[in-house]
Amino acid sequence: MLAPFEITILGNNSAIPANGRFPSAQLLNIHDQLLLVDCGEGSQIRLAETKKKAFRLEHIFITHLHGDHFFGIFGLLTSMSLLGRTKTLNIYCHAPLQKLLETTLEITKGGINYPIEFHFLPETGSQVICTTAHFEVTAFQLTHRIPTCGFLFKERFPKRKINQDKLIEAGIPKVFWGDIQKEKDVLLDTGELVASKDYILPGPKPRTYAYCTDTQFTLDFVPVIEGADTIYVDSTYMSSDEQKAKDRYHCTAAQAATIAKTAGVGRLLLGHFSSKYRNLQPLLDEAKAVFKLTEIAHQGKTFSIESW
Amino acid sequence: MLAPFEITILGNNSAIPANGRFPSAQLLNIHDQLLLVDCGEGSQIRLAETKKKAFRLEHIFITHLHGDHFFGIFGLLTSMSLLGRTKTLNIYCHAPLQKLLETTLEITKGGINYPIEFHFLPETGSQVICTTAHFEVTAFQLTHRIPTCGFLFKERFPKRKINQDKLIEAGIPKVFWGDIQKEKDVLLDTGELVASKDYILPGPKPRTYAYCTDTQFTLDFVPVIEGADTIYVDSTYMSSDEQKAKDRYHCTAAQAATIAKTAGVGRLLLGHFSSKYRNLQPLLDEAKAVFKLTEIAHQGKTFSIESW
Repeated sequence: MLAPFEITILGNNSAIPANGRFPSAQLLNIHDQLLLVDCGEGSQIRLAETKKKAFRLEHIFITHLHGDHFFGIFGLLTSMSLLGRTKTLNIYCHAPLQKLLETTLEITKGGINYPIEFHFLPETGSQVICTTAHFEVTAFQLTHRIPTCGFLFKERFPKRKINQDKLIEAGIPKVFWGDIQKEKDVLLDTGELVASKDYILPGPKPRTYAYCTDTQFTLDFVPVIEGADTIYVDSTYMSSDEQKAKDRYHCTAAQAATIAKTAGVGRLLLGHFSSKYRNLQPLLDEAKAVFKLTEIAHQGKTFSIESW
Repeated sequence: MLAPFEITILGNNSAIPANGRFPSAQLLNIHDQLLLVDCGEGSQIRLAETKKKAFRLEHIFITHLHGDHFFGIFGLLTSMSLLGRTKTLNIYCHAPLQKLLETTLEITKGGINYPIEFHFLPETGSQVICTTAHFEVTAFQLTHRIPTCGFLFKERFPKRKINQDKLIEAGIPKVFWGDIQKEKDVLLDTGELVASKDYILPGPKPRTYAYCTDTQFTLDFVPVIEGADTIYVDSTYMSSDEQKAKDRYHCTAAQAATIAKTAGVGRLLLGHFSSKYRNLQPLLDEAKAVFKLTEIAHQGKTFSIESW
C-alpha cells in the first residue's frame, strides 16, 4: 500500500476572504509527516477542523509576504506554544518575516516555548530547501509583485533496497551495507570510494506535488514542475479578466491550464479564487477546455496523490 | 422608537479558537454608527457574515495586546484598503500596536489607502477617549498580565431639545439657540457666559454597555460601570478552576456575576470562554446563581440594549 501523500485545502481564496472561503493555506501529509503551505488568516481554525493533530506539523512554507498568505502564522505559533509544543518548528520564508514575528511576539509577551528555525528562500533560481527521510522540497521563482516562490514536494523512501548480489560480487564487506542502504557513499579500507547509488535497487517512482501561487502567467518554472503528479496553480480570474490578471500579477484559469498542459502534469488543481466568483464552475469549465484533468481545490477537500 | 444600540458577538473564545468559537471581537451598532471592539484572528471573516457593511466602521477599540484580541487587525485593515476605503479609521490601542502595524504594512507592501488615526489608551485611571455626536467611550483599567483597558460605551443624543420658554425669559437672542442646542456654551454681547446645560431639556437616559475583558477578579472598576445597562465580562473558567483563573489573570463565571451584582447592572453577558468548555450551560448556571439576569454571549448573536 502506498504511504499517504495528501493535500487538504484549508483556504483557497485570494486577498479578501469571501463566500465562506478562507485565504491561502494547505495541509500536506507526506508519509504521515504534516506540512503547512501558506498560512492565511484563520488557518489555525481550519486546521483544528481537520482533526489531524495538526499541531504536530514540523514545517511551514510561506510563498511570499502578502498578508493573505501569512497573517495566520501569529495565532498558529502562539496556540502551538499554549498547547505545550516543545518540538522545533521549521519556517521556510522570505527574510523579513523573521523580524516581524519576533517583533510581534515581543509585543504580545507571547513567549514561544519551542525553538523556531528559519530557512530563507532563494531570491533567484530554484533550490532544494528541505530534505527529510520522507520528502524533499524545492523552491522556485514565481512572477509576482513581490519576491514569491513556488514549492515542489517530492516524496522520498527512507528504506531503499540494496542489490545484495551485486554487493557480494563486488566484494564489498557487509559492514558497509547499512550506510549504502542509507544512500551514503563509503570509503573501503582499500581506498576505493563506493557510490551508494550503484548498489541501490530502483524504488518506486517518487510522487510529486507543486504549489504555484501567486504568479502572473509564465512558463519559466515549467522545467521544475515538469511531469509532476499534481499541481495547484493561481487561478484568480476568468479569461474575460485576463488583462486584470496580468496587471495584478495573477493567472486566469485558462492560463493555469496552459501551464499544466505544457508541463505535462497528471492533474491540475485550481485555486486562489477572486472574491467576485461565488460559483467556481465557470473557472473549471474554462480550464478543462485546455487541460482536461483539472479539479477545483474546494476548501475542506483532501486530494490524495497516486502516480499518474 | 429607540435608535439602535446593538452588540453582535463575532468571537467569544479565549486564547485558542475551539469548538467553532473564534477569538474576541464584537461589532457595536450605536445609532447606526459601527464600532469594533477587539479584533481577534478571523474577525474580518465573521464581520463579512454579518452582512452589515461592516467595512463602514470608523472606530476600532483594542483592549490589550494579547494576540487573541488583535491578530485579525492586519487582515481587516488590508481588506478595507482593497475594498477602496478612503475614510479615516480611528484605532484606540496601546502604543506598541502602531509600530507593529507599520512594520507589517511595510513588509507586505500593503499600502493602506486611507488615513489611520491612533489614539493611545490611558495607562492609569479612567478617561474619555472618544466623543462623537452619537456616543462617548471611556477607557478604564482592568487587572491583567499586561496593560489592559475595559471600555464603557454611552450613547449620546445629537439633537437635544432646548427650553425655549426659559431662553426667552432670560432674553437670550435666537441667534445663539443653535449653539446652545449643540451643547456649546455661548458668550453674549453683554459679556455674559451662558451655560448651555441650563437651557437643554433632559433627554432620555443614555444607554450604556461595558466591555470588561481580559481581567482577573477585581471590583476596582465597578465605580466606572455602575448601573450600566449591559456588561460583558471575562468568564474564562468555572469556579472549580478559580485558582487557575487567578493565576492566568482571568475570571470565573461566578466572579463575573459578582462584578455584575456589585455594579447593579441591567444584564450580564458571559464571554471569553476557555477552549475546554464545549458546553457553556454550566457557566451560565454558575453565574445565574449569583446574578439572575445573565446570558451567554453566543457567537453570532446580536443583543439589543433597552434601558433597564
